[in-house]
Amino acid sequence: MRIALAQQNYRIGDIAGNTAKILAAIQQAKAAGAELILFSELAVCGYPPRDLLEFPEFIHACDDSLDQIRQSAHGIGILIGAPQRNPNKHGKRLFNAAYLFDDQALVGVAQKTCLPTYDIFDEYRYFEPARNWSVLNFRGKKLAITICEDIWNLGDHPLYPTCPLDQLLPQQPDLILNLSASPFDYTHLEDRKAILKQNIRKYKCPMLYCNAVGSQTEIVFDGGSLVMDAEANLIQQLPLFEECVAYVDWNENGSFDRPIQAVAAELPEAEYNPDSLQAQEGIREIHQALVMGIRDYFGKMGFRQAILGSSGGIDSAVTLALAVEALGKENVRALLLPSPFSSSHSVTDAKLLSERLGNPYDVLPIDRVFDAFLTELKPVFADRPFGLAEENMQSRIRGNFLMSVANKFGYILLNTSNKSELATGYGTLYGDMAGGLAVLGDCYKLQVYALARYINRDKEVIPFSILDKAPSAELRPNQKDSDSLPDYSLLDPILYQYIELRNGPESIISQGFDRDTVARVIRLVNINEYKRNQFCPIIRISPKSFGMGRRMPIVAHYLTEKPNS
Amino acid sequence: MRIALAQQNYRIGDIAGNTAKILAAIQQAKAAGAELILFSELAVCGYPPRDLLEFPEFIHACDDSLDQIRQSAHGIGILIGAPQRNPNKHGKRLFNAAYLFDDQALVGVAQKTCLPTYDIFDEYRYFEPARNWSVLNFRGKKLAITICEDIWNLGDHPLYPTCPLDQLLPQQPDLILNLSASPFDYTHLEDRKAILKQNIRKYKCPMLYCNAVGSQTEIVFDGGSLVMDAEANLIQQLPLFEECVAYVDWNENGSFDRPIQAVAAELPEAEYNPDSLQAQEGIREIHQALVMGIRDYFGKMGFRQAILGSSGGIDSAVTLALAVEALGKENVRALLLPSPFSSSHSVTDAKLLSERLGNPYDVLPIDRVFDAFLTELKPVFADRPFGLAEENMQSRIRGNFLMSVANKFGYILLNTSNKSELATGYGTLYGDMAGGLAVLGDCYKLQVYALARYINRDKEVIPFSILDKAPSAELRPNQKDSDSLPDYSLLDPILYQYIELRNGPESIISQGFDRDTVARVIRLVNINEYKRNQFCPIIRISPKSFGMGRRMPIVAHYLTEKPNS
Repeated sequence: MRIALAQQNYRIGDIAGNTAKILAAIQQAKAAGAELILFSELAVCGYPPRDLLEFPEFIHACDDSLDQIRQSAHGIGILIGAPQRNPNKHGKRLFNAAYLFDDQALVGVAQKTCLPTYDIFDEYRYFEPARNWSVLNFRGKKLAITICEDIWNLGDHPLYPTCPLDQLLPQQPDLILNLSASPFDYTHLEDRKAILKQNIRKYKCPMLYCNAVGSQTEIVFDGGSLVMDAEANLIQQLPLFEECVAYVDWNENGSFDRPIQAVAAELPEAEYNPDSLQAQEGIREIHQALVMGIRDYFGKMGFRQAILGSSGGIDSAVTLALAVEALGKENVRALLLPSPFSSSHSVTDAKLLSERLGNPYDVLPIDRVFDAFLTELKPVFADRPFGLAEENMQSRIRGNFLMSVANKFGYILLNTSNKSELATGYGTLYGDMAGGLAVLGDCYKLQVYALARYINRDKEVIPFSILDKAPSAELRPNQKDSDSLPDYSLLDPILYQYIELRNGPESIISQGFDRDTVARVIRLVNINEYKRNQFCPIIRISPKSFGMGRRMPIVAHYLTEKPNS
Repeated sequence: MRIALAQQNYRIGDIAGNTAKILAAIQQAKAAGAELILFSELAVCGYPPRDLLEFPEFIHACDDSLDQIRQSAHGIGILIGAPQRNPNKHGKRLFNAAYLFDDQALVGVAQKTCLPTYDIFDEYRYFEPARNWSVLNFRGKKLAITICEDIWNLGDHPLYPTCPLDQLLPQQPDLILNLSASPFDYTHLEDRKAILKQNIRKYKCPMLYCNAVGSQTEIVFDGGSLVMDAEANLIQQLPLFEECVAYVDWNENGSFDRPIQAVAAELPEAEYNPDSLQAQEGIREIHQALVMGIRDYFGKMGFRQAILGSSGGIDSAVTLALAVEALGKENVRALLLPSPFSSSHSVTDAKLLSERLGNPYDVLPIDRVFDAFLTELKPVFADRPFGLAEENMQSRIRGNFLMSVANKFGYILLNTSNKSELATGYGTLYGDMAGGLAVLGDCYKLQVYALARYINRDKEVIPFSILDKAPSAELRPNQKDSDSLPDYSLLDPILYQYIELRNGPESIISQGFDRDTVARVIRLVNINEYKRNQFCPIIRISPKSFGMGRRMPIVAHYLTEKPNS
């Protein structure tokens, strides 16, 4: 039996567009002689559809799409993810389901059991978990159908009491299928292969895993769909970060022929080591995720051109290089916005970068506008000394220049803040925190350097002088980041402990970090929640990104103040 | 038996401060001869603690607080809400629990069964539902302890299969207790009394309902705790929007004496009718919620003074009046920021308003800064005509003036956007969308007018000329809101259908609304998700506010574009 895996990139809510894409893959698979084609989780509406699921008309539109897909199940079986209404009196109104069609009829529906409701996931907000499990019979074979997280529960998962495959196995399935929408983060590639192996070792059954691909605003789905035989041999891995329809031939004896179309799956060179944030290993996949994140955000929003402020610093340099790769050099405009406190090398470095990348740029000094503001505010500010207000003012003037040019020509402003800055609130609301998409907002400063080195892997794209200079906001004379923050080599590991690992201060201190530094860093993270709350979407590359996956109170007094006593 | 209800205002994460407040109420209740004191849901840490619950050190701090509270249970029983670790191998790591202490010992723990996971609620992200139900014996009485949502399930709730009181009733409880953190919205006051009555009619048991009070950034808890006897007679209602420790005497025969301290509970005059957005009924409670929302945001964040842009329009006028009531006139500074397109009455009206309210104000024309921007941008803009970019530029210059003065003097910028504008994207990111807290962001324009009339109920505070003029952004000559948007009397009801009621376009059109207008309005709502995604917290007064309770994809193609076919 030839089976097709359709690793596709959907647009959330664009049911008509997704359906057209799905129907095209079905035609292609039929022409290739496939007897069954697999799609990913909630393919019909895109994942995650979020509160669109609360609109009855939206579910109705999904039903209409499923009906079209059913009609195309002519000479081919189709297994596809879509929401399903819950007919029971109690519980959430929907299931996260997989529909199996054959001979233009519904063979059966499998429902997701393990509904992730943590980090970026809100599935229990919408879906009722499965309470019945049956293999589905397809052309004489028994298929055990699971959805994404279902295979991450092997019976001992702390979150989930029910293991769906333990329920299905007594029915002696011939094949396990999994429809996923499993997002990329730098820990996930190896995890996924390991979990498939664990399932196969436990259930002694071959397995096909079909993942979504493409970025949905902040979440990057990286594809990398997998086929393993009953001995957990890797038969096929679909490419990362690319759409692909691939085929495997599954024999009567349960084995697979080698892939009929070789799919050039670039395997990760090495696993990323998150404990070493400056590590170069695994940085290629982070780079790919960021490029796809930019490209898909623009593509799916219907935008074409980006603008950004190019300061001569490392963050804007890396953002610019990524944007040029994602959108093409002619579609990324850099504005150099020197202030009275910008050093001369800032402008020359930023110019050199754009000349190397070949993207258009303009130099617009902000001095005169800054002077006009100061003149108007003189009666209000009186003789108060230059301070944070004047620093932020410059950053907001830049924000206004960028947004004005963006509004005039239809560009989207890319934000260049990194995760270390966002964590500590080292940025200006409506100034350098402005933008439609934060490219580096989930990368610590040390990771930004690693990305710069990766971008320079073959030749010097980002001038070495940008990599070498001490980080500075240049909003007052001789300012350095290190005036306000611990060195990044100390700051980033503390942030990683607090944010990614959810270790509290005592736990971090017990690992040998300085008590006062830890207290200071955690306080900065907590008191700046209000800033991040107004921040744009961040391309997520870590298991704990700021944004929808980290939901902290704005009024947070946890460990930021002394007890009242 | 004298029972105390402690309706208190906690700070999220401020476990030490909350504990001090709890211990003070316990002392007060002991002195008043109470045998039992009730607190609200998750009182120890404040509600909602959100992802703070993921930090083991945070749970440990809650445990320490509970231990202090246990030790104070000397001569008085204490029933208090706090997180509890789940000792089981599977499931979420915590329960949302109520601890009963007496004689300095733990009598027992009740766990919440019905975990809201919709709108602003994320409880299943953290908590495992109860699976065992037992009444707790307290001084010869059997107490049926429930937590918030538990009593909203009477056995036929569509979301919850298990009704905790159906489990508890066979054990013949003498009293039902409910610990709540139930937020205000304009539908909720009457709902709550009705649900208590339904419970009592079903279970024939008296009931004490202790709610939290106080605002937690966007969520306003309104108090209004209740005591009803076994015939569902209202024995006591604690005040709305105020802290209070109140007492009831519960007799051996199950009846209550009249309250020993009369608590002046101002009852709502009439129920708010959400279908009539300009209705004056129930507007008093909305007004109180907004004032508390401002006051508590500032109090809990440690801020004292506010700033806002006063345009001479109705939104900034109502925001200013509310802020003056919440913070005191000397603590609210208005900036009048006329542009070249501002009408003269804008400035005179705004001045008159501040003179009546007695708050300080300054006039800072934006012309010269605007000219400086236009001069710098001349080479980039060339001879392109005046348009949206120049309009937004003025709004962002105002944002920069406001933030600069705020940063200089330590003010917090109040945002003045209303829900109709936020819904349709009729606002400028980093301009009039700037601010730390949106006072009117959950009030449609028609409701803003109703608030203005309420503020003017005794005398003309907001000048009638502000109420009478046609709404305008004044960013180009003779601009009117109605150039870009349908009349608010038509727009607001469509928005209400789409946002509050989650009706799709066909359903709205079938109610008699014009097809093209509905399509245009829904498209505006959908394509502006990216703007709202960067917006500040909004004080929530409706059952569906923008912000954490409405989670829509940013890339939303649902009903905004023609199908591809």
